[in-house]
Amino acid sequence: MRNISPSEVKNASVSNLKSLCEELRKEIKETVSSCGGHLSSNLGTVELTLALHRVFDFPRDKVVFDVGHQCYTHKLLSGRASVFHTLRKEGGISGFPKREESEYDCYGTGHAGTAVSAALGIAKARDLKGENFDVIAVVGDGSFNNGLIYEAFNSLKILNTRILVILNDNGMSISPTVGGTHEILDEMKGAHVPDEDIKLYEKFGLRYLGVYNGNDLDELLPAMERAKEALKFESVLLHVTTKKGLGYAFSENAPAETHGVSPHPSEKKEYAQALGEELCKMAEEDDRIVAVTAAMTDSLGLRPFFERFQGRAFDVGICEEHASVLCAAMAAGGMKPYYAVYSTFLQRSFDEIVHDICGQNLPVTFCIDRAGITGEDGETHQGVFDLSFLSFIPNLTIAVPKDIGEFRAMLRASKNFSAPLAIRYPRQGTEGEVLPLEMGKFEVLHSTISDIVVFAAGERCIGLAKEILKKAEREGLAFTLVNARFVKPLDAALLSALHQKYIVTLEDNVLIGGLGDAIARFYRGEERQVVSFGYRDAFIPHGEAGSLSEKYGLDKEKILQTIRSFHARG
Amino acid sequence: MRNISPSEVKNASVSNLKSLCEELRKEIKETVSSCGGHLSSNLGTVELTLALHRVFDFPRDKVVFDVGHQCYTHKLLSGRASVFHTLRKEGGISGFPKREESEYDCYGTGHAGTAVSAALGIAKARDLKGENFDVIAVVGDGSFNNGLIYEAFNSLKILNTRILVILNDNGMSISPTVGGTHEILDEMKGAHVPDEDIKLYEKFGLRYLGVYNGNDLDELLPAMERAKEALKFESVLLHVTTKKGLGYAFSENAPAETHGVSPHPSEKKEYAQALGEELCKMAEEDDRIVAVTAAMTDSLGLRPFFERFQGRAFDVGICEEHASVLCAAMAAGGMKPYYAVYSTFLQRSFDEIVHDICGQNLPVTFCIDRAGITGEDGETHQGVFDLSFLSFIPNLTIAVPKDIGEFRAMLRASKNFSAPLAIRYPRQGTEGEVLPLEMGKFEVLHSTISDIVVFAAGERCIGLAKEILKKAEREGLAFTLVNARFVKPLDAALLSALHQKYIVTLEDNVLIGGLGDAIARFYRGEERQVVSFGYRDAFIPHGEAGSLSEKYGLDKEKILQTIRSFHARG
Repeated sequence: MRNISPSEVKNASVSNLKSLCEELRKEIKETVSSCGGHLSSNLGTVELTLALHRVFDFPRDKVVFDVGHQCYTHKLLSGRASVFHTLRKEGGISGFPKREESEYDCYGTGHAGTAVSAALGIAKARDLKGENFDVIAVVGDGSFNNGLIYEAFNSLKILNTRILVILNDNGMSISPTVGGTHEILDEMKGAHVPDEDIKLYEKFGLRYLGVYNGNDLDELLPAMERAKEALKFESVLLHVTTKKGLGYAFSENAPAETHGVSPHPSEKKEYAQALGEELCKMAEEDDRIVAVTAAMTDSLGLRPFFERFQGRAFDVGICEEHASVLCAAMAAGGMKPYYAVYSTFLQRSFDEIVHDICGQNLPVTFCIDRAGITGEDGETHQGVFDLSFLSFIPNLTIAVPKDIGEFRAMLRASKNFSAPLAIRYPRQGTEGEVLPLEMGKFEVLHSTISDIVVFAAGERCIGLAKEILKKAEREGLAFTLVNARFVKPLDAALLSALHQKYIVTLEDNVLIGGLGDAIARFYRGEERQVVSFGYRDAFIPHGEAGSLSEKYGLDKEKILQTIRSFHARG
Repeated sequence: MRNISPSEVKNASVSNLKSLCEELRKEIKETVSSCGGHLSSNLGTVELTLALHRVFDFPRDKVVFDVGHQCYTHKLLSGRASVFHTLRKEGGISGFPKREESEYDCYGTGHAGTAVSAALGIAKARDLKGENFDVIAVVGDGSFNNGLIYEAFNSLKILNTRILVILNDNGMSISPTVGGTHEILDEMKGAHVPDEDIKLYEKFGLRYLGVYNGNDLDELLPAMERAKEALKFESVLLHVTTKKGLGYAFSENAPAETHGVSPHPSEKKEYAQALGEELCKMAEEDDRIVAVTAAMTDSLGLRPFFERFQGRAFDVGICEEHASVLCAAMAAGGMKPYYAVYSTFLQRSFDEIVHDICGQNLPVTFCIDRAGITGEDGETHQGVFDLSFLSFIPNLTIAVPKDIGEFRAMLRASKNFSAPLAIRYPRQGTEGEVLPLEMGKFEVLHSTISDIVVFAAGERCIGLAKEILKKAEREGLAFTLVNARFVKPLDAALLSALHQKYIVTLEDNVLIGGLGDAIARFYRGEERQVVSFGYRDAFIPHGEAGSLSEKYGLDKEKILQTIRSFHARG
């Protein structure tokens, strides 16, 4: 796209700005259709972002985008139009704000609810340094459910600084926004705004301005000017409504489905679909089964369950911590809760997993989707830490299926499992057979008399190991291949029975604290050698998942080389 | 104390109940003075808990105590009076509610803000099972700042169930409660309660009843009856005020200081005091330094800093997540934030440490107090996971001082350190020298020509290693002792230079994912043997810290035995 200068945005007539919006919308639509990315949220916020650039003076002023997936117009207006076609590609620009990418990105985001805290911190630093600029947080109504936002609001008067919070209210948090806060916001959009709704925010120290149509520049620009003026004296909450997917009928009608768009239709199956199918079957036979999600019913595959078992299905909004405690307590009350969540968002529940679920040894099952390298969304969305942050928690069993069939088998086995269980899996995979399995037992996939054994966990690594096995066999090398489908507890009986001296481990996780460390710990003191492959100690940026995986540690050739060198020694 | 039967509580006259309160207060005061524990919060809630037992029918009805440190009267009234003298002692009763201890403890707590979520989960399970009983959450005003509570309130209408939330408003959250929510609650205690304050809670689906004097049975008992009646139709928020420390002048006047009481005055020094002293000195020279706490100014040693640098000191209430993001953003804005927090409560910030601080490589320093086994508070307060949940986070440096002097040196070195840093230390220790140190460098404390080297991290383990060294030398055994004061990054130069074949590691942390794993990983593939000592994979209950430490893995005799066997082989 052509470069749009700040002066163009500052000086254009409103009618020219409206044309610019169409230009931006077209660029976003085209780029997302080729690169993938967040479509509906970006189509909805074109005018809002343009108004910010019209009224404020970036990068002197600072804007923090909550979650950050709605930053495309901001990128297009801040000198990145010419590289926008590299969106989400390895080495290209990120789909999220990133400090190292541009001085216009003052604070990186990816997870929900951080923007108000971040804006407060930046504003407070400004005050302490005696500087003078405006700080803005752009927050969706979905994040208004999140506890972190509330903690930040509670802090406004303590910190005694000034920020502008723009509530971008589109009624969605991937799934439609739910809960008490949402009902309050909805009332505020009605013909008669209850006085107490406004006072609620005023009590926290925010002057309330709203509600304005965030897709109508004629209404929005004066409102933004008014907010800027008010911000000279106090913190401001500017409440605007926008329409997710605006300008693209397909997206307007299906905002949840077009929230995240993949560039290439895949032949592969979704683990999420299997989750929905299995949970429905299990729930028919077992009244104790309930399902919980934090605003991601569809992408986690829970839609069928929500439709068939309405009273036992809970979308609690973007409240990962609460979701975990709720599951713990329902389990304490005799139910059998399944909490489906993306690996990266499970991080938000870490304390509750330790303190509430595993600390009380309660039978909650975590269905951890998007585990391992996920690819194009980058650092904040890779699921490469879960084995590490779960492995040391007492009472927890960690399962890693090799394919969707095994995932189904694990779910079925979970029904009568009376302790905390985490099953982690990637988005997509192959179907595979559903064979009964025993908790904590590995599976020998290929057995030879060689002195080398490879332990692999998860579909990516099992696939990789099989490829390597083929190549190795062509070279006259052989190894035993074990599906290490339980990272905790390890299959001690099998590990002890194996005679092999040379051990290779493969995992779709950072190396520190994962499967490799666990197996090496098991064999410590024995005359065996363990070489582990997984990701090195770094945040993994955006790019194609397979390519990143190889680059950051699961390098086929290096693994093969290790096997060759073991063979030479053995 | 004598056993108090449910029928006594149900049938006694109010005046006899008042006498019973004095009896309970006396028992609590005496037991805490001999066993240690939470004094002021328990003295403040005697009447409230008695009223609960008078009006509700436990264990059929269920009560969840938020944080749980105020559960002493509940324990005394639920069949545990005769064992109350074993409070917080190894094998005795816990200072917190514990499911395995009594059927009257329906849900275990320890960290703030979980009770409303937990009550909702228990109530929802009840509804789904077609059962009929009341569920009550007792929550302090301090926890009303916490995001998790807000997430639970947001969920009330989604879950469509009924609970009673009792807001025990004493104006304290260890430190005095702060922030916008607190101001709202304060208004509600005034002569004229603003209508909108009540409507706020009503909008979330809670019928508001208040404000009642929670220390006056004449006022409280009818209020509790009214709440029980209202609960038949909808969820209820019963707002009562109590006085922390009531009935013990010393505690009433110093509720923060008597929040947690130690049974034995210690000769040892507090790391917290050194933190306050060093931060003050550093802040005088460096305007960028700011300090943040989540409601624990005094126990973390920050009082002097808060007094001298008022504008650069922030108590944000019990909001650990927000505290972390605020630090990240202040660092992004050019400040140098120090976030002081107990190890166990840092768990609440895990996602923000990954996503906001380390993901952006921002120079925030975590001062992690109460690391390692802490003892009498039990499972929910042991600080034995931090090395494990921090070690795999890219960009983070983890320091573990051997004494207070080294802690001071680390703080001084942190001033010009431009990346995330975690310093973890126990509550108390010895002063020691302040020697300049380089980040990432170990210290050789004792060097011999033996083929054995011991790496120890932290004051408990260095002390243990020195004791063992003395014993070993008496037996004619020798080993090199290294102060492994950086668990990440390891001192690679030193590790590579060491020739010893036999390696022992000691850490005051669970074994999985800690120092031992890191050193073993470093030496993997070499002809060395690593044997690690730390805590086994279990939640460690309450007891005396030294005794627990030995029992759960840091067993002096076993370590010495390992050294003997290495010596025999070497």
